[in-house]
Amino acid sequence: MENKRLGGHYSHRYDAELEEVVNRVLAMGGLVETQLGNALQAFIDGDTQVAQEVAENDSRVNSFEVSIDERCVEILARRQPAAMDLRLVVAVIKTITDLERIGDLAEAIARMAIRQADSDRPRKQLFRDIDTMGKRVVTMLHDALDAFARMDASAALEVVRQDFAIDHDHEAILRQNATYMMEDPRNITRILDLTYASRALERAGDHARNMCEYTIYFVKGRDVRHIELSEMEAVVKGAEKA
Amino acid sequence: MENKRLGGHYSHRYDAELEEVVNRVLAMGGLVETQLGNALQAFIDGDTQVAQEVAENDSRVNSFEVSIDERCVEILARRQPAAMDLRLVVAVIKTITDLERIGDLAEAIARMAIRQADSDRPRKQLFRDIDTMGKRVVTMLHDALDAFARMDASAALEVVRQDFAIDHDHEAILRQNATYMMEDPRNITRILDLTYASRALERAGDHARNMCEYTIYFVKGRDVRHIELSEMEAVVKGAEKA
Repeated sequence: MENKRLGGHYSHRYDAELEEVVNRVLAMGGLVETQLGNALQAFIDGDTQVAQEVAENDSRVNSFEVSIDERCVEILARRQPAAMDLRLVVAVIKTITDLERIGDLAEAIARMAIRQADSDRPRKQLFRDIDTMGKRVVTMLHDALDAFARMDASAALEVVRQDFAIDHDHEAILRQNATYMMEDPRNITRILDLTYASRALERAGDHARNMCEYTIYFVKGRDVRHIELSEMEAVVKGAEKA
Repeated sequence: MENKRLGGHYSHRYDAELEEVVNRVLAMGGLVETQLGNALQAFIDGDTQVAQEVAENDSRVNSFEVSIDERCVEILARRQPAAMDLRLVVAVIKTITDLERIGDLAEAIARMAIRQADSDRPRKQLFRDIDTMGKRVVTMLHDALDAFARMDASAALEVVRQDFAIDHDHEAILRQNATYMMEDPRNITRILDLTYASRALERAGDHARNMCEYTIYFVKGRDVRHIELSEMEAVVKGAEKA
């Protein structure tokens, strides 16, 4: 079988098999984005029907992970990709692990929505902050998938930057929740769920950030995990490496 | 360069490059096991010096992850491994992601120990339960690494079973902590940290479980993620697949 290598950065001259894998990752990503958005909405609105749907759909996310991994191993075995093609396959293997974890987090948030349904809801302000933070995370995931689809390292870097704001939101929610619990101990169990939801969203943001680091690795040929943001910026601005 | 394929299950006839990668994973795993054990001890005993060491050592864990990934990509590019060799490389790429996350969780627990150092400590019983659970998780990680080193799918399955007990411990600690917070709201911030530590340990257990699923995949050639334990048992008992 002919194997046309990627011609260079931003090139879309995939061969059909690699293109199919990328499309499946994007389909999986679209599903996970919907799951996270729906889980958030169900949690905020106390909508158990939507929450139930999210919980049931998680197996679809898992199936994507298993089948994409299988395709990647087949491609590695039969096509023996090199250079940018190989980095793409490795980036996909890592990206889908993060997507699957975001799916699990969406499911966890949905299950909290179901558990909370028949109890008193704590004050609205608490939900408003989680809602704002959650919408940021959904946007971040959307942008991470977009950067991957367009092989755009600069856009990926922009998403990494967003993660700092999410971490900040989460810390603020944690502090506020601790205060509310002390003020009104009868509400502790409810507010604990808000704390867990906030943490789940913060972790989803971390996973979106990881995805962007793999996109930068794929496009630039440099592993940018565990380095300072300034170094990462230098890599993204620097000369391309095919 | 000659590439001796693995002769069959439980065989140790690696070629030198694959053997070196496996040894590096075991070295990384040993470091992460030490980090988790020390973080737990620092948290239980309030030992900020040990906690500080754990926090500082996390960069060593990260370096392992980056360098092992690099070696794996080199091997994929130059040796074009097939069958069991290929599954080994893929299992390693996934395993080190989980090890790195356990390292992050150890660091998070160590940082809580540092933060808690100059405040009143909540009642001993709470620490005792976390200590018991944490020691179980460290053992689980040790056994997961051992199953990987020996390519022992049955031992890996045993570790997966242990994860259910960890999840149970965590749920019990969460319920108990919520009760203590309601009884004594002045202690909420302290007990919240115990709750976060318990959650971090539970997640470390999940990662050790993931590692075992990759070991079963590597040895048996079957992806056992997202399936029932009974199915997993059937795969492990079933005929080998080279």
